[in-house]
Amino acid sequence: MNRISSLFGVRYPIIQGGMIWCSGWELASAVSNAGGLGLIGSGSMYPEVLRDHIRKCKQATDKPFGVNLPLLYSQTEDHIQVILDEGVKIVFTSAGNPSKYTAFLKEHGITVAHVVANKKFALKAVQAGVDALIVEGFEAGGHDGFEETTTLVLTPMIREIVDIPLISAGGIASGKAMFAAMALGADGVQVGSAFAVSKESSAHYSFKEKIVEADDGSTKLMMKKLVPVRLLRNSFFDEVQEAEDRGADKDELSALLGKGRAKKGMFEGDTEQGELEIGQVAGLINEMKPVKQIVDEMMADFHETSNRMEQIRKEI
Amino acid sequence: MNRISSLFGVRYPIIQGGMIWCSGWELASAVSNAGGLGLIGSGSMYPEVLRDHIRKCKQATDKPFGVNLPLLYSQTEDHIQVILDEGVKIVFTSAGNPSKYTAFLKEHGITVAHVVANKKFALKAVQAGVDALIVEGFEAGGHDGFEETTTLVLTPMIREIVDIPLISAGGIASGKAMFAAMALGADGVQVGSAFAVSKESSAHYSFKEKIVEADDGSTKLMMKKLVPVRLLRNSFFDEVQEAEDRGADKDELSALLGKGRAKKGMFEGDTEQGELEIGQVAGLINEMKPVKQIVDEMMADFHETSNRMEQIRKEI
Repeated sequence: MNRISSLFGVRYPIIQGGMIWCSGWELASAVSNAGGLGLIGSGSMYPEVLRDHIRKCKQATDKPFGVNLPLLYSQTEDHIQVILDEGVKIVFTSAGNPSKYTAFLKEHGITVAHVVANKKFALKAVQAGVDALIVEGFEAGGHDGFEETTTLVLTPMIREIVDIPLISAGGIASGKAMFAAMALGADGVQVGSAFAVSKESSAHYSFKEKIVEADDGSTKLMMKKLVPVRLLRNSFFDEVQEAEDRGADKDELSALLGKGRAKKGMFEGDTEQGELEIGQVAGLINEMKPVKQIVDEMMADFHETSNRMEQIRKEI
Repeated sequence: MNRISSLFGVRYPIIQGGMIWCSGWELASAVSNAGGLGLIGSGSMYPEVLRDHIRKCKQATDKPFGVNLPLLYSQTEDHIQVILDEGVKIVFTSAGNPSKYTAFLKEHGITVAHVVANKKFALKAVQAGVDALIVEGFEAGGHDGFEETTTLVLTPMIREIVDIPLISAGGIASGKAMFAAMALGADGVQVGSAFAVSKESSAHYSFKEKIVEADDGSTKLMMKKLVPVRLLRNSFFDEVQEAEDRGADKDELSALLGKGRAKKGMFEGDTEQGELEIGQVAGLINEMKPVKQIVDEMMADFHETSNRMEQIRKEI
């Protein structure tokens, strides 16, 4: 047990990213059953859909699981009500101000972790009383920080200024990367892309196929004038690229994005016109696997890396 | 000894980046004397200046050192002649096609390492017969790859497809980061920013002060329509940002850059109008130190990290 596994009551300090359109009860319960911490991604769910997923998740696992809660949506308070009603004990908050709900959630016995991408928000979240921080690097899929600080630089940067447990996110899909993140000062890791492509992910099969095909240079951080988001190359990506190259402003980008594009791509499988959010590490993922295999291989790779590094330290 | 330290005949697998305007004989010999591999950066030197630096470096150290050689400059062949004349035994090539000079250099008994930022050029360099690869991630200062792949993702990506010794570059200024890079599959590391700010670096004092002041978000990859380059924020940076935001094309960016801007900023100390090339890890560098202290602290941190990870593996 380390600080992260004991905080959440799980076997391994591996947390599944609560990604939109990927992270329903099937994925979350599979990760929790495999020894990690599963998270239901409420960002793409209406409150009653979230309730249904929480109930199904409780049926599917007797292990701890949590809910990922974006703080900027109009439905955030309804989601919180569902979380309280259903007795969820772990909440990962993101995309918003942690000082708004952290105290309230903690008064209700909920363990709260918050996602940050820079020093300023890390300190703000600690001040708000969160139990752990997720430090999300430039490599991560979906929405990223404006600073573009990578996991390699961000992890020790935040470790230097805060004492609470840290979870590194972005670029982590192997035991090697998990080992590296912990060497840099993390107590655990959050894994998104590798679970997005798992058999239990609710993402569309065509989107999963695109992730498996991805190579170096297949994703890029776009929409920096709006909110930076890492996207997989497709026709929509090319349209955004063309617009950005000629200096399109916030409004034009917003109109180009429109409504429901992530659902179209990630859930409905329109891999050309849809918005496909995935991490840079997609270039290292070459297969769709069941969650248990992903977790087991990650832990085996972690221990192999540890053995290899013991040899290396002797040589150096 | 490991594969990198034995290839270059040095004590530690730490290679100093051969950075323009920073890496003269004083820096290179100090790094070699401290147990790493020092490199003279020929990119900002006329051939006769390079000759002078090589001669002074030989006087200042009896340890191995090398020259960094950009392959795209008009003076590359004159530089090569100087390297041969002066009997330099190690060359790091960058910014160009490795198939052009690698065989020739190796025929003259020179060990050749080449810098890459993607899979395609990694394979090309191996085919050209280089002895080692530097895999340079998005975090690195100065010119970077178009793919924006970070050190955390790029290192295992290249490790998977090549067998020759690998050196990770970008984001590495501590023993923790060195340990992480080796966990990801590197045999050694190249350190730029930390040495750019060292006492022995020939960079202007005002530039060094700006690096020490840098925090998260202080650098950014710019000029992507030309050649991507990571710059430190200043007035020139703001001008580039403004031009890029309104869609400035290659020609306009090239005109804005003009000639001699890096020299102006990095060597002459005009930290507002000059081009300041530095890595993202500048945000973690808070002091100007002598090279020996940098190397010693890095190795001490490497071993502390190794001890810490032995504890962590037992907990997990």
